[in-house]
Amino acid sequence: MIVLVKSGGEEAVPKWRRAFQTVDPRLEIRWWDDAAVAPEEVSYVVVWDPEPGRLKRLSNLRVVFSSAAGVDNIVRDPEWPRHLPLVRMGGLETGQRMGEFVSWACLSLLRGARRMALGQAEARWDNFNSRFTAPERRVGIMGLGNLGGTAARMLQALGFPVAGWSRTRKELPGVESFAGAEELEAFLARTDILVCLLPSTPETRGLIDARLLSMLPRGAQVVNVGRGSHLVVPDLLAALDSGHLDGALLDVFEPEPLASDSPLWSHPKVIVTPHLASLASLRERARYIAEAIAAHEAGGPLPNLYDPERGY
Amino acid sequence: MIVLVKSGGEEAVPKWRRAFQTVDPRLEIRWWDDAAVAPEEVSYVVVWDPEPGRLKRLSNLRVVFSSAAGVDNIVRDPEWPRHLPLVRMGGLETGQRMGEFVSWACLSLLRGARRMALGQAEARWDNFNSRFTAPERRVGIMGLGNLGGTAARMLQALGFPVAGWSRTRKELPGVESFAGAEELEAFLARTDILVCLLPSTPETRGLIDARLLSMLPRGAQVVNVGRGSHLVVPDLLAALDSGHLDGALLDVFEPEPLASDSPLWSHPKVIVTPHLASLASLRERARYIAEAIAAHEAGGPLPNLYDPERGY
Repeated sequence: MIVLVKSGGEEAVPKWRRAFQTVDPRLEIRWWDDAAVAPEEVSYVVVWDPEPGRLKRLSNLRVVFSSAAGVDNIVRDPEWPRHLPLVRMGGLETGQRMGEFVSWACLSLLRGARRMALGQAEARWDNFNSRFTAPERRVGIMGLGNLGGTAARMLQALGFPVAGWSRTRKELPGVESFAGAEELEAFLARTDILVCLLPSTPETRGLIDARLLSMLPRGAQVVNVGRGSHLVVPDLLAALDSGHLDGALLDVFEPEPLASDSPLWSHPKVIVTPHLASLASLRERARYIAEAIAAHEAGGPLPNLYDPERGY
Repeated sequence: MIVLVKSGGEEAVPKWRRAFQTVDPRLEIRWWDDAAVAPEEVSYVVVWDPEPGRLKRLSNLRVVFSSAAGVDNIVRDPEWPRHLPLVRMGGLETGQRMGEFVSWACLSLLRGARRMALGQAEARWDNFNSRFTAPERRVGIMGLGNLGGTAARMLQALGFPVAGWSRTRKELPGVESFAGAEELEAFLARTDILVCLLPSTPETRGLIDARLLSMLPRGAQVVNVGRGSHLVVPDLLAALDSGHLDGALLDVFEPEPLASDSPLWSHPKVIVTPHLASLASLRERARYIAEAIAAHEAGGPLPNLYDPERGY
């Protein structure tokens, strides 16, 4: 069975091949643009941003695997094969990595990591005390799926009070749960550190704008690990510069890579990280996909399926 | 009752006064060098680094309070009044702050925060994947008291396997415990991220040297939040530059402030923070001290007493 791989570029194909080899040697891993592969020979693809119209030409495709948790770059292709199952990347490691990153991000904002980094860059001994401890800063997570749930559990152990906001109400131990547009304002009013872990859908585009930010308490901080499209950057900068917001940590941007002349890079209250919150290792992703293919071939269910009703 | 305060300098005295006022208005807070206070009028002191011989002159002193967890700057005074109780700073917030900082430090090393900060400084999109997840990096904490125990619990929730090494064997849930000089080598052999939280005593001076570092596995990382005197900096730099160590986060130095021409500031594998891991807030410290004074005046026991046998 031929698996066509785009993620990581052509130079990653030998790595994917070795990783799949150890899990299921029957899978034949080929490069996305390999001219020797006929479109009808392809059974599976591993892709994050296919060229529009390209998936449609793979006439015997069985499943589309996104190489990350988001599928927005696949479903924006007007001709993507909607009759096929589309599997989002998941698995234990993705949640672990996102939980680690969100914990690091919230602690970085709590303890003033940007100020520390600027001090180190200038060899300046800036012995300041952080104003709050974790129990005094309420984290609010937008998006309480597998990733948000893992992050919530870790943040609680660090001492942060945690609430979540999601499309439908979730039950997580110790996590206050808000749901739907009508509860958004109450959720924001009790949130000192807002973490955006939402999937990218038309409804969430531009959600974090001046109006939403104004509903956060003065001195709040923002972490964006969802998608760049969730956040209106000029509104964030205005709220930081007015003093309404006290800091932000941004891992995702629109477009990516973030332009080298963006004011975000040098802002004294902003930590910029280059979309690395939760890249599972290639080895772990190969295992996840190979196991899903084996289950599918045996007639079993596929994990983490894209749901067109929800939009993710 | 007069409480003489040195910590924070003269400008901090009004803050100390307000903080003590809300807990116990009977305490009269005066500046360390206030000429209007006669030495024999002083009942208590709050101090971190008294001038040698100074405490001896306070003839009616009842208790010495260190304003931090360490007391090494007090007991190195050859004339410090050994007959008096010496109380180390403690309390919930100190443990919480240290746990937060150690968690942040271990996550920073795990996820490559130094590389991220250098990328941001150059507006460079350096989208790298961290090699390990927390469950793949074994943390080893030297010093398993109140601070180490809180840190261990938080690190475990983040997914790190945790072991501890201390003078006497400790029992903490899920934490592998090593004790004494004879178990140091076994402790180091299983430690990927070494966290030093030891008190400063003559025996721990220079403990983290080339020999100790060579017992860590290749690629290990080091966090020092104990005292600068624990670490032999040239040995650390040599181990980083040879590739034996992969990174370090240092919060304490000898002397402090760290000299602005120290090679640590600009080292691409070293995060320098200016001794801010666990400064409890002034408000919290005032509460801790006022409650201890009230207990002492009522004939009750004092918390966190310095033990000359242990040396801390």
